[in-house]
Amino acid sequence: MNYKMIGYVLGRILLVEAALMLFPIIIAIIYGETKIISAFVLPIILLLIIGLAIGIKSPNDNSIYAREGLLIVALSWVAMSLFGAVPFFISGAIPNFVDCLFETVSGFTTTGSTILTDVESMPYSLLFWRSFTHWVGGMGVLVFVMAVLPISKGRTMHIMRAEVPGPSVGKLSSKIRTTAKILYSIYLIMTLSEIILLVCGGMPLFDSLIHSFGSAGTGGFSNKSLSVGAYNNAYFEIVIGVFMFLFGINFNLYYFLLLKRFREVFRSEELLTYFGIAIVAVLCIAANITELYGSFVEALRYSFFQVSSVMTTTGFATADFNLWPTFSKVILVILMFFGACAGSTAGGIKTARLVILFKSCIKDLRRMIHPNAVSSIRFEGKTADEKTVRGTHLYLVMYLIIFIVSVALLSLEGKDMITTFTAVATCLNNVGPGLEIVGPMGSFASFSSAGKLLLSFNMLAGRLEIYPMLALCAPALWFKKRKNDDSE
Amino acid sequence: MNYKMIGYVLGRILLVEAALMLFPIIIAIIYGETKIISAFVLPIILLLIIGLAIGIKSPNDNSIYAREGLLIVALSWVAMSLFGAVPFFISGAIPNFVDCLFETVSGFTTTGSTILTDVESMPYSLLFWRSFTHWVGGMGVLVFVMAVLPISKGRTMHIMRAEVPGPSVGKLSSKIRTTAKILYSIYLIMTLSEIILLVCGGMPLFDSLIHSFGSAGTGGFSNKSLSVGAYNNAYFEIVIGVFMFLFGINFNLYYFLLLKRFREVFRSEELLTYFGIAIVAVLCIAANITELYGSFVEALRYSFFQVSSVMTTTGFATADFNLWPTFSKVILVILMFFGACAGSTAGGIKTARLVILFKSCIKDLRRMIHPNAVSSIRFEGKTADEKTVRGTHLYLVMYLIIFIVSVALLSLEGKDMITTFTAVATCLNNVGPGLEIVGPMGSFASFSSAGKLLLSFNMLAGRLEIYPMLALCAPALWFKKRKNDDSE
Repeated sequence: MNYKMIGYVLGRILLVEAALMLFPIIIAIIYGETKIISAFVLPIILLLIIGLAIGIKSPNDNSIYAREGLLIVALSWVAMSLFGAVPFFISGAIPNFVDCLFETVSGFTTTGSTILTDVESMPYSLLFWRSFTHWVGGMGVLVFVMAVLPISKGRTMHIMRAEVPGPSVGKLSSKIRTTAKILYSIYLIMTLSEIILLVCGGMPLFDSLIHSFGSAGTGGFSNKSLSVGAYNNAYFEIVIGVFMFLFGINFNLYYFLLLKRFREVFRSEELLTYFGIAIVAVLCIAANITELYGSFVEALRYSFFQVSSVMTTTGFATADFNLWPTFSKVILVILMFFGACAGSTAGGIKTARLVILFKSCIKDLRRMIHPNAVSSIRFEGKTADEKTVRGTHLYLVMYLIIFIVSVALLSLEGKDMITTFTAVATCLNNVGPGLEIVGPMGSFASFSSAGKLLLSFNMLAGRLEIYPMLALCAPALWFKKRKNDDSE
Repeated sequence: MNYKMIGYVLGRILLVEAALMLFPIIIAIIYGETKIISAFVLPIILLLIIGLAIGIKSPNDNSIYAREGLLIVALSWVAMSLFGAVPFFISGAIPNFVDCLFETVSGFTTTGSTILTDVESMPYSLLFWRSFTHWVGGMGVLVFVMAVLPISKGRTMHIMRAEVPGPSVGKLSSKIRTTAKILYSIYLIMTLSEIILLVCGGMPLFDSLIHSFGSAGTGGFSNKSLSVGAYNNAYFEIVIGVFMFLFGINFNLYYFLLLKRFREVFRSEELLTYFGIAIVAVLCIAANITELYGSFVEALRYSFFQVSSVMTTTGFATADFNLWPTFSKVILVILMFFGACAGSTAGGIKTARLVILFKSCIKDLRRMIHPNAVSSIRFEGKTADEKTVRGTHLYLVMYLIIFIVSVALLSLEGKDMITTFTAVATCLNNVGPGLEIVGPMGSFASFSSAGKLLLSFNMLAGRLEIYPMLALCAPALWFKKRKNDDSE
């Protein structure tokens, strides 16, 4: 285990977080929230001291293997959340530190579950920081660090693999750093486009920032208790609905679009499946809720927004879908688990994995009937090797284990079954709202501290795709010496 | 496709069913239910005509391959259920034929879900037939046919594989027929032991038969609305509770006990895991419900019975666990999916599969850290080959797909989410009761005919472990000609 390198990267991350906290200070100055400034200055000083102490000197051995990659990612996210929670606590806006931590983890992991019951009473700078964590967490802060700072001499692919969602990371360029820069540029441009479109439609600039951060990171924090529904504005709903959907698409495809490699984009099996699932879900739910909203068109409006929000695991709401018929609720819960595309900012199991699982099932079923037939799975025009398929199956089983154990533990809180089940589902899949108590108009405030910590673990496990958090829970791993056979 | 052989075996099955229907006639005569006799005589005549027509002449080519095996099993179970439902319909005891079919499928698949709201008003002969289907379905009627009738010249292993639950069928003898006979003898002796113990404890003979059939097949139909709880008798609860648990153990182990191969029994990983899960679940639930029942010992009594009942997918109840705290309900729902041991009469995913899945996860996780380490999974002292592991993963994914699609379809009924979710869970896992409307003191009567047919499909898919029912749903398979490469 290369402890020095872990410390070095971690230090860099903390310095980046210190820099990121300057943005909410600007907001505090603009809105005259002078009391809140100190709530940010203190953690910035802490971050600078610790960050400089452990992150200033680049170690001689800067190699990073799978094991180090997992631990770096897990530790970075936990540390970022701990420090990110401090402003909420110092300012007194959220009195309980576990609540602050829950809210910050929910922010960075782009979940959007909240313990706040009265969002409107929060200071602007804190609301900004809360939503800004979505934007930072969406693309991954380590990817950002790699894009900006000169630490990528070693094999940093392991970090990227551990942080970017999906069964496999497509290298857009032979250099990791270039890949990270391309991804962040696309991310920035798309976010800016959404902000401009919302402002042009008449949304206040601050609100536009908040909701654009929320859709870009597929997070879902709003500065309104009623979420996007508060505006009751079809234009906003369409812009946000469409952008949520766009941020759920694999970012590599946008890069291909820029390169005019249209064939690869429009033949992407994941993209087609993603569109297919969305269209079917929107139509089914619209038909199911037509009675509630009077006309099919009106139903379509609400159905599209909620499907786009839940499927991309964003979690904005324009309607209290907790009150919808069972069929619609079941479809939404299923979509929570499906999630959007690999390589996007969304959570969930991801469409790519669903396609691979489905295809491997079909193949194995064929083999039962034609035992001697030779066949392999093709995905996105390439043969999916055995390792990818096995990895996908492993992922599904690990996902189920974490889900079931978490539901069993959370049920000790004594809340009703639907609340318990959907609270874990919505946190593990980084969606935001669940049903009943944790429905789109509810909050997570009533859970105990232990319950909130468990759900925070779920959010991190979901965002980092399980393995980094597992590595963090296996102390045996931390103290292992390197062997030659572990090298790659 | 060897149609003649399919017809021949199917014919034999129908003749066996005709013979089985003589037992309820005896009961009808004993209890003077003369009007009901004709309700059995008519289907017997039908079964004889059709059975003799298609099953009398053994075809020259009596070979059975995987594909024929799957179709024979699926068709046999559907046909048996259709004819088995006729007495309920003709007698007028259940006016709607879909209800009759649901009840009979629930019987044969050893599910025990009921549409009856007033069990006590049913004639004895019909109650007997209803529970007798549990006993017949528990061990599998095709296994019975192979044990008794001379059709086993071909490779009938494919039938046995398709009908006996579990990831792999252990051959107890080189001859399938001997294996089938051994299994049925153990089954018979254990059932008789339970009947004797119950009668000795003072339970009426008829009730003892009903509850012994229910526990032996891990079915769960009772002749009391309050199920076993109606007696409020600790002795009955212990006898039935223990026997349910025993019938959830792999029958091969009983055979090993007879052969004094104790090492194999007490080192069985599946058995130890099964015991471990049961003990943990009983203790957790007992601690959780102590407040409800006054003392831990009393709580233990109810906890043990319900855990044994749900885990073995029997479905008897001594308490309305629908009223228990969320934690206990969640544990019970998880146990529904776990099920008991492979090679028993129980439903669910089965402990053997859970062990294999867990071990393959551990192995794959190790491989992530030590990519060059060579390791393989050992199960029950043997190396589990890649085919078994893949098959287990495939099974899990197919199980999930069927579960999710069924929940989505059933949610169109507009029942609450917990009813919808647990109705599918309890039917697919062959348990019997679910929660809320379909709780232990509820019934499935309020579902529509379409819903009941869907749940019947789930019960059959669960009992036959998915593949036979899938084959039945793939008409392309029926008309396929044999190729040389498909032969084994």
